[in-house]
Amino acid sequence: MQPFTERVVDAVGASGPLCVGIDPSPALLDAWGLNDDAEGLGTFGARCIEALAGLVPVVKPQVAFYERHGSAGVAALEALIGQAADAGLLVIADAKRGDIGSTADAYADAWLRGPLAVDALTVTPYVGLGALEPLFDAARATGRGVLVLVASSNPEGRTVQEARTTQGSSVQDALLGAIAALNTSGAPGAVGAVGAVVGATRAPPAVPLSTVGGVLLAPGVGAQGATAADVGRLFDGCRPGSVLPSASRSLLGGGPSQLSAAAERLRDDLAGALL
Amino acid sequence: MQPFTERVVDAVGASGPLCVGIDPSPALLDAWGLNDDAEGLGTFGARCIEALAGLVPVVKPQVAFYERHGSAGVAALEALIGQAADAGLLVIADAKRGDIGSTADAYADAWLRGPLAVDALTVTPYVGLGALEPLFDAARATGRGVLVLVASSNPEGRTVQEARTTQGSSVQDALLGAIAALNTSGAPGAVGAVGAVVGATRAPPAVPLSTVGGVLLAPGVGAQGATAADVGRLFDGCRPGSVLPSASRSLLGGGPSQLSAAAERLRDDLAGALL
Repeated sequence: MQPFTERVVDAVGASGPLCVGIDPSPALLDAWGLNDDAEGLGTFGARCIEALAGLVPVVKPQVAFYERHGSAGVAALEALIGQAADAGLLVIADAKRGDIGSTADAYADAWLRGPLAVDALTVTPYVGLGALEPLFDAARATGRGVLVLVASSNPEGRTVQEARTTQGSSVQDALLGAIAALNTSGAPGAVGAVGAVVGATRAPPAVPLSTVGGVLLAPGVGAQGATAADVGRLFDGCRPGSVLPSASRSLLGGGPSQLSAAAERLRDDLAGALL
Repeated sequence: MQPFTERVVDAVGASGPLCVGIDPSPALLDAWGLNDDAEGLGTFGARCIEALAGLVPVVKPQVAFYERHGSAGVAALEALIGQAADAGLLVIADAKRGDIGSTADAYADAWLRGPLAVDALTVTPYVGLGALEPLFDAARATGRGVLVLVASSNPEGRTVQEARTTQGSSVQDALLGAIAALNTSGAPGAVGAVGAVVGATRAPPAVPLSTVGGVLLAPGVGAQGATAADVGRLFDGCRPGSVLPSASRSLLGGGPSQLSAAAERLRDDLAGALL
C-alpha cells in the first residue's frame, strides 16, 4: 500500500482539505431521529458515508461513541470502516489509545493489522513516545499511519502539554521534534508513518509544524471555535495536502439532509485558507 | 452501591492485596494451548476466573488484548466481566481511555454505566485532568472508580510525567495533588471515586501517596521487575487495603494449572510487605 501521508496528500488534492468526524453521540442520534442503539449507529454511519463520498477525503469515527454500545457498537464500527473504504474514503479511527510493550502491540493488531484496521489511528503519548514504537512499526510495515495527540483542542490539556521537559522544551515541542525525527529516520516505510494531532484552537508551537513530516490532524474547527482563518495561520507553510482540519458537530448538527452542503462549504473555506 | 475504594478495602481485607492482570496476549494464548481467536479469549478468561475466585480481590483485564479481535473480542470481554462479578471478584478494566467533553462522557457510558460497566476504569490524563470530569462524575454517581495513570511502570514515560508544570511541580505530582483535592471536594460520592496508577517500578513521588485518598493501582510487579519489598517501600503509610499491586505475565506464564498457587504465593508476599 502507498504510505499513509501520500494517500492523504493525493486524496486532499482530489477532494479538498476536510476530515469529517463521525460522532454518533446520544444528542446527535436523537437529532437525526435515530435510536440510541447499535442499529441507530449503523444507520447514522451509513448516512454519513452516503452524504460524504466523493466530497471529502477522510472521515474520522470517534470510537467512544461506538464503544458505548459494547460489542454491538464495535460491530457497527467494523461495518462503518468497511463502508467508508468501499466509498473511497480514508478512515482515521479516533481512539486515542496508548499503552506500553505487548499492549501497544495489541492495539496495533486491532487497529492497523486486524478486524478494525483503518488508514490511521490516533494515540495518546502519556506513556512516552518511545513506548508507542510497536504502533509505529506496524504503521511503517502496513502503509498506515499513527497520529500522536500532541496539543489537544481543549484548554485543560495545557498543564501537561506545555510542561517543561528536563531538556527545557515543552512536552508538545519535544513530541513534535521526536515525531519529525521518526519520519526522517531512514527506516523502511518511515516517511510520514507518524503524524500529529494539533488542535486548531491552539497557538503555533515553537517547533514549526512544517517540519513534522507527517499528516497533521487539526480538530476543533466549528463547534469548538476555530475558523478556517485560524487553520490557515496555524499551519502556514506546511506541505499542501498534509493538513486535515476536522469538524464534526457543526456539520452533523443540521441532520443528514444538510450534511453534504455543510461539508462542501467548510471544505471550500478551508481550501481557501490553506492555499 | 458502596463506594469503590471501600469495596476494594473490604475485598483486600478478605482476600489480600493482589490484582491479577488478565492479559490474553498471543504469546500467553499459545502457552495455554488456546487458539488466538475470540473462543480462545473466552476460555482463557473463564480459566482465570476459576483459578482466582476467592483467592484474590481484583482482576484487571487488559482491554487491548480483547480489542485485537474486534467486536467478537469485546463480546468475550463482556462475558469475562459478568463471570468475574458472579465469582465475587472486583474488575478493573485496563483501557487507559482519555478524551474531552462529550467523548469523555461516552467513555463513561461504556465503562461505568453501560454494557462494559466495571468496578473501575483506568484513564490517561494527557488531555488534562479537568477534561476527564465527566468520567469522575459518573464514578461518583455509580459508586465505581476511575484510576488515573500518573506514573507508568516503563522508563519512556518520564519525559512527560516528570516534566515541570508552570506551577513548578512535576506533572505526576500536580496530578496526585489534584486527585487528592477531588477526593476531598465534599461532592456527593467524591471520597475515593478517583484513584491513581503508579508503577511499582517507580521512586516515591514528592506528593506523598498516602494523601491521594483513593485506590492506588501498582502495575509492574513480577515480569517488569518490581518486588514485594519495592511495593512496601513505595506505598509505605498508605491506607491498608487501598493499594493494589498488579502482576500478570509472571503469574499467567506458568499456565492455568499453576495460576492459583502462583497468585497465592505473591499475594502472601505482598501482604507481608504492605503490613
